[in-house]
Amino acid sequence: MDGNRVLTGTRSFAGRQIVLDHGTGARLSRELVEYVVAVLGDVYIGQMEDSAVLSVAAGQLAMTTDSFVVDPPFFGNGDVGKIAVCGTVNDLAVIGATPKYLTLGMIIEAGLPVAALTRVLESIRETARQAGVLIVAGDTKVVRPGEADQIYLNTTGIGVFERTPLRMTDVRAGDQIVLSGPIGNHTVHLLSVREGLGFESRVSSDCAPLNGLITEAFESVEDGAVRSVRDVTRGGLAAVLHEYAKALGAGLRIDEQALPVDPEVKMACDMLGIDPLNTANEGCVCLFLDPGAVERVLAALHSHPYGRRAVVVGEVADDTESAVRMRDRDGHIRILEELQGAELPRLC
Amino acid sequence: MDGNRVLTGTRSFAGRQIVLDHGTGARLSRELVEYVVAVLGDVYIGQMEDSAVLSVAAGQLAMTTDSFVVDPPFFGNGDVGKIAVCGTVNDLAVIGATPKYLTLGMIIEAGLPVAALTRVLESIRETARQAGVLIVAGDTKVVRPGEADQIYLNTTGIGVFERTPLRMTDVRAGDQIVLSGPIGNHTVHLLSVREGLGFESRVSSDCAPLNGLITEAFESVEDGAVRSVRDVTRGGLAAVLHEYAKALGAGLRIDEQALPVDPEVKMACDMLGIDPLNTANEGCVCLFLDPGAVERVLAALHSHPYGRRAVVVGEVADDTESAVRMRDRDGHIRILEELQGAELPRLC
Repeated sequence: MDGNRVLTGTRSFAGRQIVLDHGTGARLSRELVEYVVAVLGDVYIGQMEDSAVLSVAAGQLAMTTDSFVVDPPFFGNGDVGKIAVCGTVNDLAVIGATPKYLTLGMIIEAGLPVAALTRVLESIRETARQAGVLIVAGDTKVVRPGEADQIYLNTTGIGVFERTPLRMTDVRAGDQIVLSGPIGNHTVHLLSVREGLGFESRVSSDCAPLNGLITEAFESVEDGAVRSVRDVTRGGLAAVLHEYAKALGAGLRIDEQALPVDPEVKMACDMLGIDPLNTANEGCVCLFLDPGAVERVLAALHSHPYGRRAVVVGEVADDTESAVRMRDRDGHIRILEELQGAELPRLC
Repeated sequence: MDGNRVLTGTRSFAGRQIVLDHGTGARLSRELVEYVVAVLGDVYIGQMEDSAVLSVAAGQLAMTTDSFVVDPPFFGNGDVGKIAVCGTVNDLAVIGATPKYLTLGMIIEAGLPVAALTRVLESIRETARQAGVLIVAGDTKVVRPGEADQIYLNTTGIGVFERTPLRMTDVRAGDQIVLSGPIGNHTVHLLSVREGLGFESRVSSDCAPLNGLITEAFESVEDGAVRSVRDVTRGGLAAVLHEYAKALGAGLRIDEQALPVDPEVKMACDMLGIDPLNTANEGCVCLFLDPGAVERVLAALHSHPYGRRAVVVGEVADDTESAVRMRDRDGHIRILEELQGAELPRLC
C-alpha cells in the first residue's frame, strides 16, 4: 500500500456514508478497501492480491469460522467488531490452539455512516492487538438499505498447536466442571440496550479475548489435565452441558448454588423471564478438569483479569445416561431439559 | 456425527421454514447444524468441536475470504451456494495455490424455506466436489425477517502451493493479456432474472470453479511464464486492468474488437446502458503471459471446457503512465477512465 493514497482515501471518507457503489468493484470500492486497510493499521498484513500468502510450519492447524449479526451492533462496552475478534479467537483457544491469523468479511447496509464503520474497525484493531492475532485478508460487500441491519461480520481464524489438540471425548467420569467467570452479563447488557431497560450502565458485556487466560490454565498443570474447554456462547451453559452429555454418553451434574450470577443479572433475568443458564456470553469458558488439577487451574485463572471469579460448578457423573442434572438452591435434583429454542436472536 | 441423529434431524426438517430459534443455540440450532452436515455429506469433514484440526506440510499457505450477497440468490443455472464455492476457489487458484479447505458461514433470514437452504447446500456440495475442496467448519446465524435478503454466505479458503506464489508485480512490459472466456454473461443473466427482462434463458451465468483450468495453463509452460492471473469479478475487466496499471506503474492496452462478448450479451448491455467491460463475471480469468508462452497457454485453455474461447485481448505497454488505453472498433485509441461506481449492486 502506498501511504499517500491511503491518506487521500482516509480524508475523502470523513463524514460520509457507505453507498452501494462502495461494493461494486470500481473506484469507490477500491477506496473503501484502502480506508479499511488504513484504519486497521499494523494488524493488517494482507497483500492487495486476491489471497494472502502465509508461512506455516508442518503440523496441525486449527480453523474456525463465525458470522456476527449482533443487535445492536454498538453497545455500552463494545461492538460487533470486538465480538467478532473475540468469538473466533476464543473458538481457536478452547481446542488448545494459539490463534494466529484472521480473515474479515463485512456485509454493510448502504447508509451506514463511515464513523460507525470506523468504530468497528478500530475495535477490531485493538482487540486483535490484545489477542495477538493478525488480519490477513478482507472482503467488503454493500447491500441496499433494509437488506441488512447496519453491519454483519464474518471472521475466520487459523491457529497453530503448541500442545495436543483437545477433544470433547477426552472428558472422563469424575472430571470437575469449572466456569471461568459469571454468566448472563452479555445477554442482559445487550437486551437492555436493545429494549431500553436501563440495566446497561450497571451490567457490562463480558466480551473478551480469552486466549491468554486459557493458556494460563493449560500451563498451570501437566498436559492432558485440562481435558476440554468450551466457550459459553449461544444457548448458554445449558447448551454446552447438553452437548457434552450427548458427546460423552454420560451424565453431568451441576449445582445451581455454585453458578456465578451477579445480583443485577439475576434481577434482570427474572424480569425478562430468562434463565441465566440459557444466556449467551462472549468472555466465559467452561473447563472440564482432572480432579487433581482443579486447585492449580483455579489459582491460575484467579490470577488473570478475566478469570478472577472462576469457580467449580459441577462434575461429570459415572453413568451412561446423557442427561444434565441440577441441584437447585433447595437441594432438590432435577433434570435440565434441552431447550427447543430461547427466542433470543442476534446476541452474537 | 451419529448417523441416526442425522436422519432424525433430516426428516424433521422436510417442508419446514427456518425460524429464529434455529439460530439461538439450543436444540433447534443443533438440529439445523446436523441437517447442514447431513446434506453436505462427504465434502464436510469438520468435527463437532469449535474448530477443525487440519494437518499441513511446512511451507506457504494461501488464505482468502469472500462474502456473497447475490440478488437473486437463486437463478437460472446456479445459486449463491455455487458462486460462494467458485469465488473462493478461484481466488486461491489465481495466485497459484491449490484450493484445499473452505469454511462456510451462513446468515439466513427467518422464513426461508428449508427447501431453499437445501438447494444452496446441494450446490455447495456439488461444486466443492467438482473443485476438489472440503468444507472443514461452518456457522449458521438467523436474523429476523427483513434483516437480510434470504441468505448470505461467507466462504473462507485455504490453499497450498505446488509452485511459486504469483504476484501482480511480476508482470512486465510486453506481456500479453488473455481472457479465458466471454465477459458479461453472469451480469446479464442475473440482471435479467432480477428485473424480469427475458434474457435469462438465452444467456447463462458463467459461474464455474476455474482451478482445473488455471492448473492446465500453469502446466503448459515453464514456471514464471504465466506471470499473474486475476478473476474478472466485481468491477469487471476494467477494474482488473486499472488495478494492474496502478500496481505496475505501467500502461495497459486493450483492443475492443478482440473482447469476447456474445451478441445477446452485447444487445442486453446496450439495452441496460452498461458496458461489458464493467460487468462482474464468476467464471472468467484474465492472464498476463510471457509473449513466448501465449501459444501454448492458449492451446491448454482451449482444450478445457471452461477455456474454449480464450483469446488475447491486449498487452502491457513499455511506459510508466498508469493508464488503460483501448483501441475501439474504429481504430481510435482512447483512455479508459476508472469508473467511480457502476450502481450494479449484489452481483456476487
